Amino acid sequence: MNKLPDVDVLSYISETRKNFEKELENYVNDLKCPSLIKDAMLYSLKAGGKRLRPILMIATVEAFGIASKRAFAVASALEMIHTYSLIHDDLPAMDDDDMRRGNPTNHKVFGEANAILAGDALNTLSFEVIASITDPKVTAEMKVELIKELARAAGAEGMVGGQVADLQGEGKQLSLEDLEYIHTHKTGKLLVYAVMAGAILANASPEDKENLRKFAEHLGLAFQIQDDILDIEGDESKIGKPVGSDVQNEKSTYPKLLTLAGAKDKLQYHVSFAQQYLNKCSADTTQLNNLTEYVMNRDH
Amino acid sequence: MNKLPDVDVLSYISETRKNFEKELENYVNDLKCPSLIKDAMLYSLKAGGKRLRPILMIATVEAFGIASKRAFAVASALEMIHTYSLIHDDLPAMDDDDMRRGNPTNHKVFGEANAILAGDALNTLSFEVIASITDPKVTAEMKVELIKELARAAGAEGMVGGQVADLQGEGKQLSLEDLEYIHTHKTGKLLVYAVMAGAILANASPEDKENLRKFAEHLGLAFQIQDDILDIEGDESKIGKPVGSDVQNEKSTYPKLLTLAGAKDKLQYHVSFAQQYLNKCSADTTQLNNLTEYVMNRDH
Repeated sequence: MNKLPDVDVLSYISETRKNFEKELENYVNDLKCPSLIKDAMLYSLKAGGKRLRPILMIATVEAFGIASKRAFAVASALEMIHTYSLIHDDLPAMDDDDMRRGNPTNHKVFGEANAILAGDALNTLSFEVIASITDPKVTAEMKVELIKELARAAGAEGMVGGQVADLQGEGKQLSLEDLEYIHTHKTGKLLVYAVMAGAILANASPEDKENLRKFAEHLGLAFQIQDDILDIEGDESKIGKPVGSDVQNEKSTYPKLLTLAGAKDKLQYHVSFAQQYLNKCSADTTQLNNLTEYVMNRDH
Repeated sequence: MNKLPDVDVLSYISETRKNFEKELENYVNDLKCPSLIKDAMLYSLKAGGKRLRPILMIATVEAFGIASKRAFAVASALEMIHTYSLIHDDLPAMDDDDMRRGNPTNHKVFGEANAILAGDALNTLSFEVIASITDPKVTAEMKVELIKELARAAGAEGMVGGQVADLQGEGKQLSLEDLEYIHTHKTGKLLVYAVMAGAILANASPEDKENLRKFAEHLGLAFQIQDDILDIEGDESKIGKPVGSDVQNEKSTYPKLLTLAGAKDKLQYHVSFAQQYLNKCSADTTQLNNLTEYVMNRDH
C-alpha cells in the first residue's frame, strides 16, 4: 500500500479537474456530427460544477496506487450521464429552470428540441466511451461490468426512478422513507457508482468493494443533508440561490422532517459511518478521507 | 450451410414477433422502480409497429444456423432505442404528435416529464440488457462490440445526428445529399445495426460482415424511398396517414427531388444492390431475401 503524498485537498481537486476536463471535452470534440448538436453537448459539459463524481472515482483508483489516467474515460462517461440529467431536468416540462450555475440553461440557448437531443446523445455517448477504452489493463469483462453498473445506476432503477419519485412527491408531505428513496436514487446511485467504478478499475477485492460501497452510500446521504442545511444556514452569495428557497418551494427536506438540530445529527451519523467503512478498506484512503471532510464542511 | 425451411414470410414475421415480444416486455416488467415509469416505458414498447429491426437481426443469426433466441436480448435493446426515439420525436418540442399507430402518444397519456424520462430510461436500459446477457456463447468481447456499435448507431454520429439534421432542414429545399444524410443517419444506422448485430452474434467472417453491412445500407435507403412513394401512391386506410401529407408539409422527399419515376428507379437501384450483396454472403439468406422483397412490396 503506497502512501499518497499529503496534498492539500483544494489543490488536489483543482489539479485533478484540469487534467480530467481536457479529456472529457475531447470525446465530444472528436464526434463527426452536425455542429449544432456538438455545440449543445459541449455547452453543458463545459459548464462545470464541482466534478465531485469524477474526482471521487479518480481518488478511488489512486487509493489503490493506480494512475488517475485509468479512470478518465469512465469518469467522463459518468459526467456525461450527470450532465444529460441536468439538461433534461431543466426543461420546461420538468423543473423549468432558465439559469444553471450562472448561465442560461441548455434549452434557453439551443431550444427545447436540441436540448432534449443533446441530453439523449450524451446518455448514449457515455456507454460508447466505456466500450471504446483501449487501455489493455481494462479487460472486456471490466468494461461490461462498468457499463452494466452505470446503466443500473442511471436508469429506471436508479437516477431516473428517483427523478420520477421526486416529481410525484412535489407539493406532498413526504415521509423520511420517501425522502431517502428520492435521494439515494436521484443523486445517490451515481455517487456510489463513482466510487464503485474506481474499485472495479482498480481490481479491488470483494471486501474492499463492499466497504467502499457502504462508504459511498453514507457519503451520498451526508452530501444531500448538507445541501438541505446550507439552504437554511448558507451564504446566499456562495450557494448561488436564495437562502430558504426550499421552505418557500415547500420542498421536503431533512430539517423540515427532523428539525435543523435533528438534520445535523443525521449528517454526523452518516459522516461517521462513511469514515468507518473507509477505514476498513485496505487501500490508502487519505485523499478520499480529505474529500469526505471537504464535502461535509463545504459552504456551497 | 443449413438450408432454412421455406416458411411463408408473413408466418415467419408473426411467429418471430410473438416470441420476441414476450422477452422484450419482460425486461421492463422485471424492473424494480416506480410503477409510473414502468407503465410509461411499457406503453410505448407494447405499441408495436413492424418490429422490422428485431426481425432482421433474428433472421440474420438464423441465416448462420443459430437459434433465434441468441438474438432476443440485443434485438430487445435495439427496439428500446427505437422506441425511446419515437417517444422523444413525438414531444411538443419536436414533432408535436398527439397520435402514433392509432393510439395517443406517450406524453398525451403520461405527461411530458414522464415521457422524457421514459425515453431516457429506455435508452439507458438498452445498454444494460446487452451487458447483462448470460448466454455463454456471447463473450464479453462480443458484448463490448455490440454496445459500442449500438451507441454509435444511436448517438450524435448516428440517429440523433440525423434527427438534428432533419429538424434543421424543415421548410428548406434540401439537396439529394442532405436528404440521404438524414435518412442514412435518422433511420438507416439502426437498420444497419440490426443486421450487423446479428452478424456479430453469429461470429460471421469479416467478408460476410462487410457484405451484410452493404446489404443493410441499401435496404435502409430502399425502405425510406418506398415510404416516400407510399405517401403518394398508397392507400390512406393502410398507411395510417393522409396520402400526400409529405407534399402538404413541404417535406423533402425522393419523388420531390427526382420525380416519382426517378424515385422508383432509385428504389430498384438500391433493392438490386441489396440483393447482390446478400447473394455474396456465405450464409443461407433465404429469409433475409424474403424480408427484402416483403419490405419493398409492402403497402404500409
